[in-house]
Formats: sequence, C-alpha cells, structure tokens
Amino acid sequence: MGHHPSWAQHPLAPAAQAAVDGKTKPVGALGQLEALAVQLACLQQTLQPVLETGCVQVYVADHGVAAEGVSAYPAVVTQQMLRNFAAGGAAICVFARASQLQLDVIDVGVAGDVTQIDGIVHAKVRRGTRNLRHEPAMTLAECDAALAVGRQRVAAAHATGAHAILLGEMGIGNTTAAAALTAAFTGAPPARVTGRGTGLDDAGVERKRQVVTEALARHHAALHDPRATLAALGGLELAAMCGAALEAADRGLVVIVDGFIAAAAMLAAVRLAPAARAAMVFSHRGAEPGHVVALEALAARPLLQLDLRLGEGTGAALAWPLVRASARMLAEMATFESAGVSRTA
Amino acid sequence: MGHHPSWAQHPLAPAAQAAVDGKTKPVGALGQLEALAVQLACLQQTLQPVLETGCVQVYVADHGVAAEGVSAYPAVVTQQMLRNFAAGGAAICVFARASQLQLDVIDVGVAGDVTQIDGIVHAKVRRGTRNLRHEPAMTLAECDAALAVGRQRVAAAHATGAHAILLGEMGIGNTTAAAALTAAFTGAPPARVTGRGTGLDDAGVERKRQVVTEALARHHAALHDPRATLAALGGLELAAMCGAALEAADRGLVVIVDGFIAAAAMLAAVRLAPAARAAMVFSHRGAEPGHVVALEALAARPLLQLDLRLGEGTGAALAWPLVRASARMLAEMATFESAGVSRTA
Repeated sequence: MGHHPSWAQHPLAPAAQAAVDGKTKPVGALGQLEALAVQLACLQQTLQPVLETGCVQVYVADHGVAAEGVSAYPAVVTQQMLRNFAAGGAAICVFARASQLQLDVIDVGVAGDVTQIDGIVHAKVRRGTRNLRHEPAMTLAECDAALAVGRQRVAAAHATGAHAILLGEMGIGNTTAAAALTAAFTGAPPARVTGRGTGLDDAGVERKRQVVTEALARHHAALHDPRATLAALGGLELAAMCGAALEAADRGLVVIVDGFIAAAAMLAAVRLAPAARAAMVFSHRGAEPGHVVALEALAARPLLQLDLRLGEGTGAALAWPLVRASARMLAEMATFESAGVSRTA
Repeated sequence: MGHHPSWAQHPLAPAAQAAVDGKTKPVGALGQLEALAVQLACLQQTLQPVLETGCVQVYVADHGVAAEGVSAYPAVVTQQMLRNFAAGGAAICVFARASQLQLDVIDVGVAGDVTQIDGIVHAKVRRGTRNLRHEPAMTLAECDAALAVGRQRVAAAHATGAHAILLGEMGIGNTTAAAALTAAFTGAPPARVTGRGTGLDDAGVERKRQVVTEALARHHAALHDPRATLAALGGLELAAMCGAALEAADRGLVVIVDGFIAAAAMLAAVRLAPAARAAMVFSHRGAEPGHVVALEALAARPLLQLDLRLGEGTGAALAWPLVRASARMLAEMATFESAGVSRTA
C-alpha cells in the first residue's frame, strides 16, 4: 500500500509543527510524541488538542475456521473469556481501570447463548462465522451488520464524550482470519503472515498456513473488492472493528489500534476509506509476523514494542497514556517565549 | 559489566513467575511486562505488588565543562529551565500532572543564586562543578554531599508514601559528564559514548569527544574507585541521582531511570552497591550513543523506544503507567482457575 500519513498534507500541519518546535525543549527531543501531537492537532483541527476520555471497545466473536485446529485453545474459551471480561478479571479490565478508560465488551458473534451475562453489550450478528476454508466466513449482509455494530458503538461512545476509541478483540481462531485478510490486502504470501497466534506448535502453524493458502485460492474472485474480501476471509469482530474505525474517523475521534487482528481490520478500513488512516494511532508491534506486514502496509510506526500478543485491546490501553501525553504536551507546555528560555547558543 | 538481573535469584522469583503464568492469558502474552511484574514482586517481597504513588525527582545542576562549548545551549538555560519547572511549564511538569505523579525539582548545583524561586527544593552543594577537562569536577566531600542530597530526597518521598522514585535531571553540559562516566565505567572508547546531546553540530561533537578523551587521561588515577570516578568526571545532579538510587534500593522502592544521564549515574550506583540493580527499571532507550552503551552494561532492556532525548525525567514519567500496569496485572488479574477458563486444547 505504501500509504503516507494523510495528515502531513493537512492545512494545520505546518502550524502544529511550529507549535511543537516552539515548546521549551530541543527540537525533536520528544521524538515520536512530536509527530503524534501534530497528527492529533490535525485530526481535532486545533493547536490545543484534548484527549482525556477514551473508550476501549473489545469486540468478541467466534470463528468457524477454529474447527481446523488453528488455535492452541478450544473454541469454548471465547465464551469463558467473555465471562471473565464481564467479571473484571481479564488483563484489559485491569489496564482499563488503571488508566480510567471506559470499557465496552461487545458480543458481536460468540457461538453460544450468552444473553444471561450482564455487563456486556449484546449485539450478536450470528453465532460465529462459517469456516473460511470452505465457504465465505460471512455473507455481505452479515458483514454489513457487523460493520454497523462497530459504527453504532462508536456513536454511543462519542455521545458519552469519548475523545478516543481503543480497538481490541477476542476470538479463538481469529489470527487465521487476520492472516488471510493481511495476505489478501497486502499481497504478502501466506507464509509471511502466519504465526503461532496464542501458542501453536510447528504442526499447527503449518496447518494454519495451509488453511490460509486454500482460503485465498477459494475466495479469489472476492479479492477485487474490500468489502467482499472482509466478508469472505474476516470475522464478525474484525468487521465490527473496521466499522468502528470508519465511524470514529468520520467523527474526528482518535482510533488507537491494538494488535495484529485490529491492524488487519484497519487494512480493510483504509481500503474502504483511505482518509480514515489519519485517525489511526498504532499502539504496539508484536511478535506475530503478520502484524509486522500489516503495520508496514499501513505505514505505521507503533508506539510500543513490548512483545505483547494478547489482544483484548491491551496494547491500546497501555499506549493510551502516551497518546494523552502527546496532546497535553502541545496544549500545556510553555514556549521559549512564554517561559523566557534562551534558544540555542 | 555483563550484570545479570539479581532478582532472578530471589527466593520469590519462581512463585512470582508461576503467578504470572497462571493469569488468564497465554503464557508470555504480556511480553516485557511479565518479567517486570516478577521484578516488582521480588523487590516488594509480595505476589501482590503495589505501585500507585510515584515521585519524580529532577536534579538540576551546572557544569564547569560547559565552558568548553560542549552544548548547543548557553549555561544560563539551566537557571531559566529551573524557573520553567517551578512555573509548571516544562515537559516533565505536564507529564507528571497527566499521570498524577509528585514532582520534586531540586537545585543541587545551579551556578547562580536561585534562592528566590519558590516551589523547588533548595539543596545546592556548590555553584556548578569545576571543569572536568582540567581538574576533578568535585572534591570527594562535595560528591558525598550531593550523594546525601539524593538519599535525603528519597527518604522524604518515602515518608510521604511514594512506592517509586522516577529519576531525571537537567543541566547544560551534562551529556559530557555522562559520556565521561560511561567510558570510565564500561571501558568503551570516547567515540562510542559521545553524541550530539541536545543538538551539537559535527564540530561540537568532535570537541566534546576530545574533552572526554583528555578528561579520562587526566583523571586516570581516580578510575580504580567508583566514588573517586564519580567525583572526578561526574556532576552534582549525577551524584545526587546515584545517591537517590542507592537509598531507594535500600528501602525497597522501585527506581525508574530516565535517559542517558540518569543511566550513567546508575552505572556509578551499581559499582558502589551491585544489589541496587534489582530496584532499577529503565524507562527508555534514546538516540544518544552513550545511552545504548550504558544500558548494555547495565543488562537493561528499556520499556520505551520513542527517540526521546530531553531528560528531565520525561522518559521515566512516560514509562510510569507501564510499570504500574505490570504491578496491577499481578495483583488484580484473574487466574485460569478463579475465572473458570480452559487452558490450552
């Protein structure tokens, strides 16, 4: 894709860069946070960006392809983890509390009846996708419904005052869908985008690679169209994250993207609406090989490299204080003039 | 030095690792934060580490070696920035507010009368160091006095309930002192540890390298002893950070180390008391070449790589939420058993 940051051409970018350079620090001394501050200024169209309230959205769904033995965990773990999210015991619950982030957990496609679980958003489109090795994971109508769930959740978060949406997911089997989408959208061969996921052994990785290769061949006709590609190879939580990013970008909200699965959903989003890229901040680069490929295709330089590979939005939540600090730097730091500090000798 | 993390041999390390592995996530899925959680557990001697209150300490001092033209900024900037810290306009003020960190700014050796500035700690040992190119930067007595300032400030922060001390500094000319100390403590040649600092041009870097080379030769006899080395080549803020780290380690407080200058002070600290290494968490790796050399000698894997090169404790403040999240993960996440989640298939 070789996508270049669209905010570099934003009319406010030169003024935002000048404002960053006028702060009491050597030019460039805050490194990556300086470029991020410029991006936030352009997105919010102000030299005083405000980024205080964030909403983590964890989209949860099952995958028909899990039947192929492409995960180290049984599919029932998706439901079990949904209960763990609701009870506040999962990693993302801990990190969201620590950073005072709102947390929405959304059932967009868990394979089972979870209507009795309180504290989550019930927006199930269907009970898991079909097996993408043999048939399209979703119909176009199901894909559209999942996209709409994401759009609706972002609209709801915006209504409560969120400045940023942090996108994460959980779903046994979803690194296979993410690998297939990444291969489809970037042209990278299956071997380059397929990894161990949550802990596959060598035989499991080889099986997963074979599934991705077969799926790309089977759904070849769909790959000319991003929506058809997302339906054939994606997942309900991937489509929902894609819809969420598109809605957030439409509303000028920052999108903080978690790991590999979320990045694969962002590949779909920028194919559907290239301007959405300007709203996206990438939280971390993990060990999964497809993650690196997806980030390169998105011209993304993530904030963290901590060898995270959990998903759930954990990387996004961990990056949140850095994004907020970037905005605060631009809004609150003194300038050389206001503070009476001399510039270089 | 090839120093190995001393907490790996701590009696609690196996239990802490088992506790991390029992949390509802694939083993290793929180990457670097998992090793950090084990370190925090060993340091606090509990499987429920608490890390909620942090105190940023910014030690400020001037350097006689600034007369050699080794900084892109005039020496008067040290005093001007002290006023900026007191007024709340510097980057560290913004980041400390954003993360609800206490902020102590300490004059340990500014070259001028700043007694009229409110809101800072007045603990001046002398008005700047001597020029280390020509004579020892400090006498042993002055070095001891600066070490004691750091120890006292940590004791004071501990008395107010701080769980962690975040160590930063400001002082025009101090990358030269840090480069000289790093060369002395690691044996790296001056060319490997000398960089652009806050923005030197090529001629400035060459001048700085020459100063470091001459200083190492002049003070050769002192280099057998870490305290004499710190006195000859260091700075008042470097000695204070060294004392602060030693006191924090004695008290079981976490030390979050900012950038190159702070890392050079930690080289001195681990030479004086190797066990202090177990208390240290390194916040970031910057672009300054000496920073990389110092971190390698400390066997440190920093949390952030954001091309920061500001100092002031900014990297430490930015890393703080990650350190706190590690502790919270261990203290608050559900286990597979408590949450009823299946382990691998």
